[in-house]
Amino acid sequence: MTRNQLISTFALALTLLNGCASIPPTPGEGTIHLKSVRGFHVSGERVRLSGLPLREVRTNPQAVPRMADPNGDYQVGQLYVQQFSQVSPKGKVPILLWHGGGLTGVTWETTPDGRSGWHEFFMRAGYDTYVSDAVERGRASWARYPEINKVEPEHRTPDQAWEIFRFGPKDGYSSDPAKQKVYPGQQFPAAHIDQFAKQFVARWTTSDVWIQKAYNELVQRVCPCIIIGHSQAGMFVFNAAQAAPDKVKAVIMIEPASALDPAKFSGANVKHIPHLVVWGDNVATDKAWSLYRNNAQRYTSAITAAGGSADTFDLPAMGLRGNSHMVMMDKNSDEVARLVRNWLVKLGFEH
Amino acid sequence: MTRNQLISTFALALTLLNGCASIPPTPGEGTIHLKSVRGFHVSGERVRLSGLPLREVRTNPQAVPRMADPNGDYQVGQLYVQQFSQVSPKGKVPILLWHGGGLTGVTWETTPDGRSGWHEFFMRAGYDTYVSDAVERGRASWARYPEINKVEPEHRTPDQAWEIFRFGPKDGYSSDPAKQKVYPGQQFPAAHIDQFAKQFVARWTTSDVWIQKAYNELVQRVCPCIIIGHSQAGMFVFNAAQAAPDKVKAVIMIEPASALDPAKFSGANVKHIPHLVVWGDNVATDKAWSLYRNNAQRYTSAITAAGGSADTFDLPAMGLRGNSHMVMMDKNSDEVARLVRNWLVKLGFEH
Repeated sequence: MTRNQLISTFALALTLLNGCASIPPTPGEGTIHLKSVRGFHVSGERVRLSGLPLREVRTNPQAVPRMADPNGDYQVGQLYVQQFSQVSPKGKVPILLWHGGGLTGVTWETTPDGRSGWHEFFMRAGYDTYVSDAVERGRASWARYPEINKVEPEHRTPDQAWEIFRFGPKDGYSSDPAKQKVYPGQQFPAAHIDQFAKQFVARWTTSDVWIQKAYNELVQRVCPCIIIGHSQAGMFVFNAAQAAPDKVKAVIMIEPASALDPAKFSGANVKHIPHLVVWGDNVATDKAWSLYRNNAQRYTSAITAAGGSADTFDLPAMGLRGNSHMVMMDKNSDEVARLVRNWLVKLGFEH
Repeated sequence: MTRNQLISTFALALTLLNGCASIPPTPGEGTIHLKSVRGFHVSGERVRLSGLPLREVRTNPQAVPRMADPNGDYQVGQLYVQQFSQVSPKGKVPILLWHGGGLTGVTWETTPDGRSGWHEFFMRAGYDTYVSDAVERGRASWARYPEINKVEPEHRTPDQAWEIFRFGPKDGYSSDPAKQKVYPGQQFPAAHIDQFAKQFVARWTTSDVWIQKAYNELVQRVCPCIIIGHSQAGMFVFNAAQAAPDKVKAVIMIEPASALDPAKFSGANVKHIPHLVVWGDNVATDKAWSLYRNNAQRYTSAITAAGGSADTFDLPAMGLRGNSHMVMMDKNSDEVARLVRNWLVKLGFEH
């Protein structure tokens, strides 16, 4: 980050933290008035398998055994989305919530220590919302391997996540809170690491094309919208805005693990779309996250260079210390949600 | 079904179909007033793997390649549940919705042809609800194989489902609605078979113990309650009521694929819990479903023999023809939901 960018971030931070008359009150325990709650799949294709041997299946001890034929049609490449429609939306457009790698839409729900999550926060603020499980995650279902997916998936352990998500140093993981090593002032509720690890799902590193296609179709179907993405969703969100610059009205990326190469994607294409990138603590001392932050910075700089608006919330520079990669689950998750919402309010996204 | 049982079913059906003053109006397009929407995992255990080789992973083209260590802790055996809490519940206790085999909680959401599902129906009727994904399905996540699960999972095709779910005769499946062979008067929206097939998820036939344990823990945590289950959930629901006869206040099984052996489970244990079993059309001519219906009948007969209450809705005998195994997705799904709700109303489950 350059000195000027840092100063602009500070100035924005002070304005937001001081609050102002136009910012509505923080969503509390009030009622959520919904017109409907729907769940459905978007995108995907039909793949027909043949030549596989039959095998005997007995689905439960009382079931009639049958020779199951695995040959036939498979629906693959679809994503799952849950749509919450407000009776009287206060948000002028819906918010789409796109999770990160090895995770699902549960990212945005109740935090591992049992607090209200970002999805509920933005519903209480009055936005229509769409919470998705990307292709092959959660309710989206996954395509069998090796017949359709050619490789086996990755399974993340909390041992791995500990360092990657910056809860603490390498080998700092323990399921026993008394033995855990966390970074000073850590905001992630690390004592509840077991509950968090229950959210982990297998991921394929080969399905980006399917995922992007499905997200682009979702945008065509339900936008205009604001997209809030996390981590792996970086390239999916930035790409979606490039692919539908008339449909995506704001981009908010929480710790993007990938961005777009400004040599291949023009910042001018999306200069009318306000972008916001949010970073937690302990990024600069982490080799991988420093690189990812630089990638994001390089891309958003191309947007500002083209005359567009791209803000960065560097949380520690704004006085919020100790945030992990899982900002929306951290102990101060509501505080960060308020900053994000206030950014939207100032841009006129609420009635 | 004996002649007397048939007559009693008819009599009940006529009462319900005629309606009566005490039955509240059908939920329409009114607002759903929610206090909160939560999502979390219940049950599960920690399994530690060791001795597996490292492998190089690059999660996306821009990511720093890393040697991933698959050794470490895994959380397995948990189920996922989404909790919708009404501001002023009209239902005296919440409804838990438990899906069938190879499926997830999406079963109860929007139907494949885009209509409102049973979950929305019961939310509009004013019940608190809990919609789960059983262990290894959807957002519950699945345990890696062969290291934790010893066998590979089953993947269902729409070709298989066509006959098993009684949409039409064996080999009647086609993705092209013009080429499909359906049973006369079929209520399943077969033209939308692709959208339905997107809901299919892999299943393990070896995880019943985990699933039952997780469901029993869910009941301890969130009940007293009514449980509505489908298909594979039969034994899970009937077992849950036997295991917690003080917590489960009503059991509603839609086409249970399994029941309990009355030689091992006493009907007297649950005689104070009203049971309802619902069956669609074309059951008697299907070998497997005839057997499953007999199993359910044998178990519920043990409940009535002990002086308890166990009703059967044989939908074709009640004048509703053409229902498939996926009653909650059929074209007349709202009509069946109303019958089920009216059964609850008559038992005094609504304020």
